[in-house]
Amino acid sequence: MPERIIFDTDPGVDDAMALYFALRSPELEIVGLTTVFGNGPVDLTTLNALRLLEIAGRPDIPVARGAAGPLSGVFHHGAGVVHGVDGQGDVFLPDPQTRPLPVSAADFIVERVLAEPGALTLLAVGPLTNLALALEREPRIAGLVRRVVLMGGNAFVPGNITPAAEANIYNDVEAADRVFAADWPVTMIGLDVTQRTVMSATDLGRYAAADNALAAHLARITPFYLNFTRGNDGIDGIFVHDSTAVAYLVCPEAFTIQRHRVRVETQGFASGKTWPARSGVYGGDAWDGRPEVEIAVAVDGARTVALELARVCGDRE
Amino acid sequence: MPERIIFDTDPGVDDAMALYFALRSPELEIVGLTTVFGNGPVDLTTLNALRLLEIAGRPDIPVARGAAGPLSGVFHHGAGVVHGVDGQGDVFLPDPQTRPLPVSAADFIVERVLAEPGALTLLAVGPLTNLALALEREPRIAGLVRRVVLMGGNAFVPGNITPAAEANIYNDVEAADRVFAADWPVTMIGLDVTQRTVMSATDLGRYAAADNALAAHLARITPFYLNFTRGNDGIDGIFVHDSTAVAYLVCPEAFTIQRHRVRVETQGFASGKTWPARSGVYGGDAWDGRPEVEIAVAVDGARTVALELARVCGDRE
Repeated sequence: MPERIIFDTDPGVDDAMALYFALRSPELEIVGLTTVFGNGPVDLTTLNALRLLEIAGRPDIPVARGAAGPLSGVFHHGAGVVHGVDGQGDVFLPDPQTRPLPVSAADFIVERVLAEPGALTLLAVGPLTNLALALEREPRIAGLVRRVVLMGGNAFVPGNITPAAEANIYNDVEAADRVFAADWPVTMIGLDVTQRTVMSATDLGRYAAADNALAAHLARITPFYLNFTRGNDGIDGIFVHDSTAVAYLVCPEAFTIQRHRVRVETQGFASGKTWPARSGVYGGDAWDGRPEVEIAVAVDGARTVALELARVCGDRE
Repeated sequence: MPERIIFDTDPGVDDAMALYFALRSPELEIVGLTTVFGNGPVDLTTLNALRLLEIAGRPDIPVARGAAGPLSGVFHHGAGVVHGVDGQGDVFLPDPQTRPLPVSAADFIVERVLAEPGALTLLAVGPLTNLALALEREPRIAGLVRRVVLMGGNAFVPGNITPAAEANIYNDVEAADRVFAADWPVTMIGLDVTQRTVMSATDLGRYAAADNALAAHLARITPFYLNFTRGNDGIDGIFVHDSTAVAYLVCPEAFTIQRHRVRVETQGFASGKTWPARSGVYGGDAWDGRPEVEIAVAVDGARTVALELARVCGDRE
C-alpha cells in the first residue's frame, strides 16, 4: 500500500521536481495538493500547481488554495530571481483548464485527516502556514496524521535566505514554531542535507534526454534555477531542496537522523533559525514541553539524486 | 620583542591554565591582569588572579578589578559546578599577600592603551564587560590597541551554556555585541576550535609529573574540572577553552581563519549566539557597517595541546 500524501507546496522550480519525483514513485500516492505563498504569491503558486498536474496527466488530483501570507507580518516576495517571475523558470505556461477546490488548504487538510484517521502524511515543502492554520482549526489532527515530513530549516549549518535562516521557515516563523511545538511526528529535511545534495548540470541534462512530459517540463524550467545557483552559490549544479523530502519518504535509509526538540527564532535579525536541543541538555529549559523531532543531519546525496533522476526520467533504478 | 598583553580573565580553572601558558611563553609579556565576573563573582576571580600570580612568582604583575556583572541584566553565578565554589577546583587557596590596583579594569585598559598606542593586545577570556566599558569611556582605544583576541562565541557549532550560546558571550551579550561592532582587529577563538581541542586525562597527568609551581597548581585544580567534563560532555579529558586563545597568539599557524562580520543575539532563548555573515552575503543587510572579524574555524588541537604542555611543564618543544 503506498503512503498517502497531502502535498503542501509553493511551486517553484524545485517544487515541480519534488512533485514529479513523488508522482513517479510507487511508494507514494498523492491525494491532494495544497498551495501556499513562498516561491511566488499564492495565486501564482496555485496556478502552477494546476499546471504541473495537467502537464503530468494528473488533473484528477485536487488542489486547494492556501495562505497568501504568514500568520503575522507581511510576505515580501523576492524569489523571482530564483524561480522566475512565473515561478517556473520564466517559461510562461498557458493557463490551466482546471480550477482549485472551493475549500481552503487548511480546511482541506482538516477534512481529509479527520476522514482517514492515521492514514495521511503531510509533506510540506513551502512555508508552514497551512499546517499551522489546520492545527489551529482542529488541534486533533496532530494525533490523526500518519506523520509530517517537511523541507525547511537548518539545524547545524548556516541559513540561505539570511545568514541565520532557511527560506521556508523564514517566510512564516510563527507557523513553523507551532508545527515544531505540536505533538505529531515531524521529520525535518533541512539545509543540513539539502545543501549536501547537488544535482549537477550534467545530471540536469538527463531531463532533456528523457522521453516523458514530466522530464520534458523539468528540462525547460531548471536552466533558470541552475543559472541562479551558479551565480549565487558558485556550484555547477543545484541544491536539491524540496525533492530531498520526497527522497526521505521513498529511501529513508539514505539519511542519518538525530532527534531533538526544536524551537524557531521568531524575532530579530536571526528570525527563522531552527534551534535544536537534545532532551535534558544543559541550558535547554527553554525547549521544555516540546516533542522530539527527527532531524536529517546527513545524507547520501549521490544516491538520492540518482534515485530521483531514475524515477523521473523513467530509467530502471 | 614579545607581544605585550593585557589579560582580561575570570579565573576559573582554564583561565589558570591559559595564564600559566602565557607566562611561560617568551612570545608574550603580560603587563597586567584585569578581572571580571564569570567563572565566579568578581571578588573571587580577583582574589584568584592575585593568587595565581603569587603561585607563579609574579606578584609584580598588576591586577585591576573589573565588572561585577553584565552591562544589562543580572549575573547568575552557576559555574561552581565547573570550576569549584572557589573557582579553583575547590582547593581553597590561602588569601593572597597582594592587593588589586586602586583603578577599575576599564580605566586600567584605557590608561595603558593611551600610554602605549599601537603596542598592547587585549587577550580576553571571560565575559567582555571590561572591554565594552573601556570602549565606552574612551572610544579612541579601538584605534590604539594592537589587536583583540578573545575566547568566546560559537560561529558554526552549537553552544555550551545553552544549545545556542557559549558561556562568555552569554554572560554579557550586550558587551560582546559592542566588542564585535567596534572598529578594531578582533580574533574570535570560539567553540568551533576550543571543543576540537581536548586535553586528555593522560595529558593532564603530566602537570603532576612536572617540577615547577605552575604545573603543580594546575595538577591540583584540573581534576575537579575533568570530573565535570567527564560527566557533562562524556569525554575522558577537558575542552581547552581559554588556553586556545593563548595558543593562537603563540602558534597562529595551527589555526584556520575565516573573516566574517559578527552580530550577537541579545534577546530571547538564543541570546548569546554569535552570528557570522560574510560581506555581501544574501540577507546579510543586518550586519552592514560592522568590521570583519577573524574567526578560528579549525585547529590542529593535538599541536596546540602539545605546545601548551611543553611550555607549562618545562619540557623542550
